[in-house]
Amino acid sequence: MTFTPTDYNPYDFANRRHIGPSPSEMAEMLDTVGVRTLDELIEQTIPASIRQAKPLTWAPLAEHELLAKMKEVAAKNRVMTSLIGQGYYGTVTPPAIQRNILENPAWYTAYTPYQPEIAQGRLEALLNYQTMVCDLTGLDVANASLLDEATAAAEAMTMAERVAKSKAKAFFVDRFCHPQTIAVIRTRALPLGIEIIEDDVRTLDPSKVFGAIFQYPGSYGHVTDFTQRIASLHAVGAVAIMATDLLALCLLKEPGAMGADIAVGSAQRFGVPMGYGGPHAAFMAVKDAHKRQMPGRIVGVSIDAQGGKAYRLSLQTREQHIRREKATSNVCTAQALLAVMASFYAVFHGPKGLRAIAERVHFLTQRLARALKAAGAKVDPKAFFDTITVEVGVGQAGILAAARNEGLNFRKIGTNRVGISLDETTDERVLVRVLKAFGIDGVPPHRASLGFPETMLRTTEYLTHPVFHMNRAESEMMRYMRRLSDRDLALDRAMIPLGSCTMKLNAAAEMMPITWPEFGSLHPFAPKDQAAGYTEAINDLSAKLCEITGYDAMSMQPNSGAQGEYAGLLTIQAYHRSRGDAHRTVCLIPTSAHGTNPASAQMAGMEVVVVKSAPNGDVDVEDFRAKAAAAGDRLAACMITYPSTHGVFEETVKDICKITHDHGGQVYIDGANMNALVGLVKPGEIGGDVSHLNLHKTFAIPHGGGGPGMGPIGVKAHLAPHLPGHPETGGDGAVSAAPYGSASILLISWAYCLMMGGPGCTQATRVAILNANYIAARLAGSYPILFMGNKGRVAHECILDTRPFAEVGVTVDDIAKRLIDNGFHAPTMSWPVAGTLMVEPTESETKAEIDRFITALLAIRAEIAAVEKGEITAEESPLRHAPHTVAALVTEAWDRKYSREQGCFPPGAFRVDKYWPPVGRVDNVFGDRNLICTCPPVESYMEAAE
Amino acid sequence: MTFTPTDYNPYDFANRRHIGPSPSEMAEMLDTVGVRTLDELIEQTIPASIRQAKPLTWAPLAEHELLAKMKEVAAKNRVMTSLIGQGYYGTVTPPAIQRNILENPAWYTAYTPYQPEIAQGRLEALLNYQTMVCDLTGLDVANASLLDEATAAAEAMTMAERVAKSKAKAFFVDRFCHPQTIAVIRTRALPLGIEIIEDDVRTLDPSKVFGAIFQYPGSYGHVTDFTQRIASLHAVGAVAIMATDLLALCLLKEPGAMGADIAVGSAQRFGVPMGYGGPHAAFMAVKDAHKRQMPGRIVGVSIDAQGGKAYRLSLQTREQHIRREKATSNVCTAQALLAVMASFYAVFHGPKGLRAIAERVHFLTQRLARALKAAGAKVDPKAFFDTITVEVGVGQAGILAAARNEGLNFRKIGTNRVGISLDETTDERVLVRVLKAFGIDGVPPHRASLGFPETMLRTTEYLTHPVFHMNRAESEMMRYMRRLSDRDLALDRAMIPLGSCTMKLNAAAEMMPITWPEFGSLHPFAPKDQAAGYTEAINDLSAKLCEITGYDAMSMQPNSGAQGEYAGLLTIQAYHRSRGDAHRTVCLIPTSAHGTNPASAQMAGMEVVVVKSAPNGDVDVEDFRAKAAAAGDRLAACMITYPSTHGVFEETVKDICKITHDHGGQVYIDGANMNALVGLVKPGEIGGDVSHLNLHKTFAIPHGGGGPGMGPIGVKAHLAPHLPGHPETGGDGAVSAAPYGSASILLISWAYCLMMGGPGCTQATRVAILNANYIAARLAGSYPILFMGNKGRVAHECILDTRPFAEVGVTVDDIAKRLIDNGFHAPTMSWPVAGTLMVEPTESETKAEIDRFITALLAIRAEIAAVEKGEITAEESPLRHAPHTVAALVTEAWDRKYSREQGCFPPGAFRVDKYWPPVGRVDNVFGDRNLICTCPPVESYMEAAE
Repeated sequence: MTFTPTDYNPYDFANRRHIGPSPSEMAEMLDTVGVRTLDELIEQTIPASIRQAKPLTWAPLAEHELLAKMKEVAAKNRVMTSLIGQGYYGTVTPPAIQRNILENPAWYTAYTPYQPEIAQGRLEALLNYQTMVCDLTGLDVANASLLDEATAAAEAMTMAERVAKSKAKAFFVDRFCHPQTIAVIRTRALPLGIEIIEDDVRTLDPSKVFGAIFQYPGSYGHVTDFTQRIASLHAVGAVAIMATDLLALCLLKEPGAMGADIAVGSAQRFGVPMGYGGPHAAFMAVKDAHKRQMPGRIVGVSIDAQGGKAYRLSLQTREQHIRREKATSNVCTAQALLAVMASFYAVFHGPKGLRAIAERVHFLTQRLARALKAAGAKVDPKAFFDTITVEVGVGQAGILAAARNEGLNFRKIGTNRVGISLDETTDERVLVRVLKAFGIDGVPPHRASLGFPETMLRTTEYLTHPVFHMNRAESEMMRYMRRLSDRDLALDRAMIPLGSCTMKLNAAAEMMPITWPEFGSLHPFAPKDQAAGYTEAINDLSAKLCEITGYDAMSMQPNSGAQGEYAGLLTIQAYHRSRGDAHRTVCLIPTSAHGTNPASAQMAGMEVVVVKSAPNGDVDVEDFRAKAAAAGDRLAACMITYPSTHGVFEETVKDICKITHDHGGQVYIDGANMNALVGLVKPGEIGGDVSHLNLHKTFAIPHGGGGPGMGPIGVKAHLAPHLPGHPETGGDGAVSAAPYGSASILLISWAYCLMMGGPGCTQATRVAILNANYIAARLAGSYPILFMGNKGRVAHECILDTRPFAEVGVTVDDIAKRLIDNGFHAPTMSWPVAGTLMVEPTESETKAEIDRFITALLAIRAEIAAVEKGEITAEESPLRHAPHTVAALVTEAWDRKYSREQGCFPPGAFRVDKYWPPVGRVDNVFGDRNLICTCPPVESYMEAAE
Repeated sequence: MTFTPTDYNPYDFANRRHIGPSPSEMAEMLDTVGVRTLDELIEQTIPASIRQAKPLTWAPLAEHELLAKMKEVAAKNRVMTSLIGQGYYGTVTPPAIQRNILENPAWYTAYTPYQPEIAQGRLEALLNYQTMVCDLTGLDVANASLLDEATAAAEAMTMAERVAKSKAKAFFVDRFCHPQTIAVIRTRALPLGIEIIEDDVRTLDPSKVFGAIFQYPGSYGHVTDFTQRIASLHAVGAVAIMATDLLALCLLKEPGAMGADIAVGSAQRFGVPMGYGGPHAAFMAVKDAHKRQMPGRIVGVSIDAQGGKAYRLSLQTREQHIRREKATSNVCTAQALLAVMASFYAVFHGPKGLRAIAERVHFLTQRLARALKAAGAKVDPKAFFDTITVEVGVGQAGILAAARNEGLNFRKIGTNRVGISLDETTDERVLVRVLKAFGIDGVPPHRASLGFPETMLRTTEYLTHPVFHMNRAESEMMRYMRRLSDRDLALDRAMIPLGSCTMKLNAAAEMMPITWPEFGSLHPFAPKDQAAGYTEAINDLSAKLCEITGYDAMSMQPNSGAQGEYAGLLTIQAYHRSRGDAHRTVCLIPTSAHGTNPASAQMAGMEVVVVKSAPNGDVDVEDFRAKAAAAGDRLAACMITYPSTHGVFEETVKDICKITHDHGGQVYIDGANMNALVGLVKPGEIGGDVSHLNLHKTFAIPHGGGGPGMGPIGVKAHLAPHLPGHPETGGDGAVSAAPYGSASILLISWAYCLMMGGPGCTQATRVAILNANYIAARLAGSYPILFMGNKGRVAHECILDTRPFAEVGVTVDDIAKRLIDNGFHAPTMSWPVAGTLMVEPTESETKAEIDRFITALLAIRAEIAAVEKGEITAEESPLRHAPHTVAALVTEAWDRKYSREQGCFPPGAFRVDKYWPPVGRVDNVFGDRNLICTCPPVESYMEAAE
């Protein structure tokens, strides 16, 4: 025989691992779609005039090559002991939490829990988080996390304006707030016309403000009782906000006890690595009276169809995607995964453990202060928790250098002070090094005495719920985490065909580096030379994203898609302002836009003018032209999505851009659908001036059950000077607490780009389009497909019209819940068109999984047909009773009009490996009417043996 | 108010994480047991004369302190590119496999799949492994892994002796076998009286041997066709064994095609890190005719009670725990977790990928050989796959140093050659460095040509089963791994109360370091100075284990408990021999001993004399005395277990030791029950001369679904000179392929000791005893408890007598399977006494979980009572129908005498989080009669959409 060598690369990540359909499967799919080649399909899908000329060319890396490169880059970061504080602290991530949550796809690949029946596990964890936040802050209702402490503070300010009885227009900011918090508040206030008074709290004149924010403990360590100040604010109908620290509250009098209306802060130090800035969960808690005005998502308790307890996201109707330009916030992505981690940290330690940690940190700080004072240093403040500052005069540079010599980072304050914040990881050896930096030998002995007045001690209990008193054995913790994750359906078990959410593979190799200490332990404000690895990663990722988008510069600061939209609009505004065009405030937004667009424009202080959509979902160009003309030189921008939110590559996109530019406006192209563009269309080439990218959609950051995400923005060169600045890196207009947002997860997107290579990234787009068109082709005979392009093609998603079934009483909800019986997460429901399902398979799904999904939808269609034929009513059908639980199956009396088998094992469902939802259909109305947002009191959290 | 500081350590691993019952739970449990304090219980349990005087004192580390220390120690290892070969090769562990298998407690905390109904996932993965091994070797039946290649070769030799028709007494060993393989074969042969002829294959005289082993490719690279040699062996009724390499077989003619009877080897390079020696899965495959003589575990296909396909371990009745001194092997622990990894590596790459990898390695080796020859070097052999040797004469030291300079390790061969083995991780950059070490610049171009004759090419297909042709998208792989793991019940979901197996917590922090490259990437034969981290870890662990056991020296070589027994007995023999006492061959073993004891003694060439047990399970001292006297100066040793396998601390243990010593014998104390001793009793102080420790029981190495394990032996000083040697470290008597066995998992045990501290280790023992006595106290009224000590206490496990229920037809099996409905793994069944259940809760289980288990057993007792009262027959009862599956539940016609609810949700079962077995009760007899040990041909492996 003759030897024939194999021409096959076993390490090709893009073609063999990331992209679902194999070459032979693709051939079959193309056949079904009715084209000969993928090229042909792309030609039919994307107008030639739009398609980019130059392919993406960087070479791919195999998984092991990527990890080797990541190790090299990691080694370029220098991990020192950062005692900088300022909202970021060293913390010990319990290994059981790292392994079983952060590194576990069952947790990190989950979607936002909008479908509560398949999300009871993470909803419970988030409810634990809310309970923890309420308890520690002493307030009534908390949300399920916000992006970071600074944006939470800004959200609190705008919320204060809404709820304040005072009609004053100014907002007071304690000068002891963290600088980044002040910067983000200022950014937010500017377009909204809120005047910021930043000063010493002693100067506060309540009559002048609708609200005030105090940092507690202060950024420079001060522990102050704000009770009197808050009372004076309340006396004039103003609102008191406290930015606070959960660990300090384990020991200190809580904001609720001082009368605060709102508390915000970060849960980072509850076991979440600093990660050079994030991601971490911020929190917000409010008095009961304000709960319906609180931004963000709130987990609540409701009941299911059988009357059992069930968790769900409450008050969804308030959300920006429904409220649009009437929305009060554009918060969309939260930090679910990190909130889950922080909540498990609290479960892991319990109140006794948390208090012990707080005391440990405090006593060490006390010893440090004593030693410094004994050596004659001028130490501030008198009352502190974990942070002190030392006056060092002209010796500042010398002390900072001496600290670095000891492997320590102190905080540089002004020109003559340094700040030192201790944390959970500080031990006596660190203390020795700190003192050595001051030339002091030895440390004073431990003493269990307080560094603040006893009157500031907390007198109330916290974390009294049984879940925080669970046996702390690791076996028990591990099983609790496993049980919760098993209740949920995530990408590790099935496709999540959510239109507009791009639930693609989050590869294990992409996730590995983020838990390496070289990336996890970096303080966001550490000296730049200690972060050379991060700098290299961020620069290279920026360069690649510029190449992909056709933009000239990137800002990595926005840590969510909506944040990116907002930052992009602010950049446009700053540009106009720099040219003396401050009067340009009109923003044209088509009706078909994602609801965050108008919400963001609203926040950016723009006047939203809505443009009609044509019946096929396209922007109505004539209406656009007319409204642009009407705005004239008041036109600031237009916001469009490409391909459109209806999943169509509009031929007219260039016209729209031209009209905008002709009127002196800037074009914002929403990058939500970037997964249909990468390598094929550059938004910066077709007329866009700025776009945000959802790295958690197109660039493989996992959704984490509702966050984290990243929303960097790309801009054309003329806008680059107006990108967000940051107090730490210079410039105004900060939108996030950290200069590079949630920096550590940028590594995931970078890893994705590196492993895919330019051609792989492009192929992903092409296959995403193929997968969507395959679904459309297979389902077209059964469900009307809305909004095809003029060649009968959809983009990377397709919309199934289910409105015709309403006649016989079958709702879009019935279909969504019935899909749970088949083992699927529902597609996006009723968006962008009410009564439809929008399906986005992404490139990562195999033909087999897509076929299983099609099988399920066809079977559902047959069940609908039975209703249409009058064989069964909608109410009696398995559609309405969906999802089916084991509890339903086990009942002796089965009085349904269909069999158990039909109910539980519809076509497409796995038999042995079936996912069983833990609850039946959840009652939304009941939940909103009876808003309970902390752990239900009676119940034990570990499901008890019966 | 006055501030009261908390005196509480939130990072205390031993008391808060590892040990299950909290202090308040312990108080309740002590109350139930009827003692006031834990001290009192220990006094009642362990005879005062036995208890050790000196407490263990080393200080504990917190989890984060441990990880910091591990990082420091890891940094002391120097990871070079090892091209040493000799059975160990660089490999790329696919990240998806690392994350979802090796780092996933659902896989690593599982037990050996003796209960097939709750182990279908890992049984399927192991069946994939067997299929892969059969396909690649071209043989008919493979087992589910063995300890390492060297022991597999030794097992093959003894198996050959059993199946050979030739009555010759010698065994031929190809001198091109790996040196460690030859050493282990020699060790094994000596006590069995097998003469080893080690020579060039060309000298083989078939008439003189019952079998022969050839290495293919040879240790020094040779690719040889053994077809003729094998035929000549067969002509005289001798058996041909080939030690081979799975990757080479992707390209080379397979052993089956040459007529080999048995093939052995290591699956290490299929994605399992070298780990300084292990753990890795070895394999053995045989011709169909020999399958019932093959050692080790074999997964087979059977049917369940409903007639559906179900996997199980076949031929269990052959196992050493049943065959005792008639056993043909003491193999017990396998390498299940590593076999699972290797099988997934094959699924991940498929035949095309594996062949591409093999070609890649081969072509690179070709280029290397060409370049060296071109430069005038003398390169051997002519026909090779991935290994060549170069004659370097007196320049050997210089070349090895030059290689190290390039970050490379070559193999030192004799005094004038070096060996170079390439692997999957080798790329052109490595080739450049290799050649640079020889002073050669540049590399010759790639050429797809073979370095061996075309006649040696494989002509048969392999891995044709659909499971190896699964879509290779990571999403699909990840979901397949998740589905399989979900079918199994492991420690991450529930207690596994297996007597004698000590299924304690395997903490996440203990598991983390083993996947760090600094530990994973070390070749076992790398120069010692590159392994300073390992040396420190091994030395400190040895010191701690010596302190714990009261022995003076440790050997870390045995990589399983049974291997430890065997090594211990060989050590005793070597000692006797050194004193001229070669005639001491009698080994006294009580009837109550674990079956591996006599099997190991048998393998060590000893004559087993069985000693009676008294009715209470204790050794019958008078019988012992009589048999020792009868043996007289032929007495070599006794083997006892302490506390006894009946779970009792015998008061007479010192007498037994004294009798043995008085007759000049040595005392072997089996360490299987060490979890009842640590910190309280030192076997080396009560009379033991040698013991093995099951690190995978007492010292927290996870069971991995049936391996890995480690069985180091501790000895008194007089035996230390006789501990196993190894070709790499000097000395004879190697029992394992690597000097420190499965070195990388020693880190787990070390981490356990470090985090627990001496007092924590001791407390674990005390609480293990408490937990067992609590179960005994609660169940005593319902199940007779066998074998209590004279104060009515059990040790760390208790035996429930279920024989009385046999009268009414309820079997121990019924109870075991019914426990699955409650969500529990069954206790150890029918051992040490037929018709009983032995329960060992370990210290890691919380009171809540233990109570759940008790609830389940009490409910089962009530069901038995119903049978006893004649309310229902055993056949009709839920006991006999257990375990209940979803398939049973969904059937419309429920003709049982009990309700669905009763069947599926017995007390103790979780309602929402219930574990559902994927199959009903498995038919053992059917499976053994119809032995199918490869993947069933028809069926697709991904459970298809119905």
